[in-house]
Amino acid sequence: MLGQSNNQIIIIMNDNIIYGRHPVVDAIKAGQQFDKVMLQEGIRGEFEKMLRSTCREYNIQLQVVPKTRLNRFVKGNHQGIIGFTSLIEYQHIENVLPLIFENSETPLILILDGITDVRNFGAIARTAEVAGVHAIVIPQKGAALINADAIKTSAGALAKIPICREKSLFNVIDFLHNSGVEVFVSSLESTDLIFNVDFKNPMALVIGSEDNGVHPKIMKIADKQFIIPQIGTTDSLNVSVATGMMLYEVMRQRIG
Amino acid sequence: MLGQSNNQIIIIMNDNIIYGRHPVVDAIKAGQQFDKVMLQEGIRGEFEKMLRSTCREYNIQLQVVPKTRLNRFVKGNHQGIIGFTSLIEYQHIENVLPLIFENSETPLILILDGITDVRNFGAIARTAEVAGVHAIVIPQKGAALINADAIKTSAGALAKIPICREKSLFNVIDFLHNSGVEVFVSSLESTDLIFNVDFKNPMALVIGSEDNGVHPKIMKIADKQFIIPQIGTTDSLNVSVATGMMLYEVMRQRIG
Repeated sequence: MLGQSNNQIIIIMNDNIIYGRHPVVDAIKAGQQFDKVMLQEGIRGEFEKMLRSTCREYNIQLQVVPKTRLNRFVKGNHQGIIGFTSLIEYQHIENVLPLIFENSETPLILILDGITDVRNFGAIARTAEVAGVHAIVIPQKGAALINADAIKTSAGALAKIPICREKSLFNVIDFLHNSGVEVFVSSLESTDLIFNVDFKNPMALVIGSEDNGVHPKIMKIADKQFIIPQIGTTDSLNVSVATGMMLYEVMRQRIG
Repeated sequence: MLGQSNNQIIIIMNDNIIYGRHPVVDAIKAGQQFDKVMLQEGIRGEFEKMLRSTCREYNIQLQVVPKTRLNRFVKGNHQGIIGFTSLIEYQHIENVLPLIFENSETPLILILDGITDVRNFGAIARTAEVAGVHAIVIPQKGAALINADAIKTSAGALAKIPICREKSLFNVIDFLHNSGVEVFVSSLESTDLIFNVDFKNPMALVIGSEDNGVHPKIMKIADKQFIIPQIGTTDSLNVSVATGMMLYEVMRQRIG
């Protein structure tokens, strides 16, 4: 049942889904975090304008999709709008980084650029937590949905490690640079072997997707590129395994 | 349709499945490799005895299962028996190892003890191929089924790297010892950090499952145990990521 009354928020929840025009908008304004909001194709007018400006204001991704897609998530009357609430509480790197320095630790930040596969994301979070990564940064758009599958694959790590969801990875890297954090990227085109790179200082590691790698603009502003050597002839490593190797090398240099 | 005639083998295949009494037995005797054969619970008598001795002779795992399980694989009349043919051609370590030495390479063998998850197996094979592993050894019982999913997850690596399926991993380790190959095992109980272990000589690495680790008897006959350091509080690494880290360390020492 959908409904609203004066100043009263009625939220219809189905796992991490809220649907219906007022329930979704009211939840956004009440501070509920959303991974994204889906709006039905063809919806125009006052409501659409208001929703767009609200999503902009609260930094929520708005995706326009056919009605059939919405029907797959909600059997009842969704009124053309479904919101997917966040299962974890996102943080911001601007707030997390100072705490790492205050704890006299050497920052190790993981930036995920285009890791959209839920299981890869969960597996990376699991490894990151074991390897002592202080925070994982993901973009608002083009990141894996942190759903029940991701949380399961992470073996609980997603509840322990801060996930910073940021509007612009470029701004994040600017901020890191200004804070004295070096930014590293692995690249199949690099000739510098990972063994020879110094990972002992405050650092961030940018991980790209298996298909597209790291965004060229991020490549440009990174401080250093390196390559993981490959002996065999298989195209490439799985991204979560490659991340594991890089984080291992950081551990080795810092502990070993 | 099931059938047989004098000296003529009629094989009914459905992907990698052969079913029916004569088709399965005839295929075994014709040299077709099987991952396993399933026999319906309650089947007794001459046929059962003959099948058991044939499977023993050809080193094929025979599993007794309820009829309902068989019905899930074959809709037609399976006559209480289904064989799962191998998608790859298995080899033997006794034949593979000499070739590595002949090529003047330093053997790097991976032994998988209890890795039954198909995706983990595929992911490990993919990493192994990239890292220059010469052969993967799996046991006849308690290994992952090498099905279409495993082959897909391996990104083609299962077609490139020899897979040795062996009756006894203890015998394999004996053979390796007699051939001058050192056997290493990672253990959460070890106090020797992996960084300090020398991986430059002919070696085999035994990988156990996340739940049970490496079999205690194999632990005992291994030459050296080591530990991958863990900084975080998550229980453990995913087995394919941990394998990636170990193989990375071998590459680093051999190339770096």
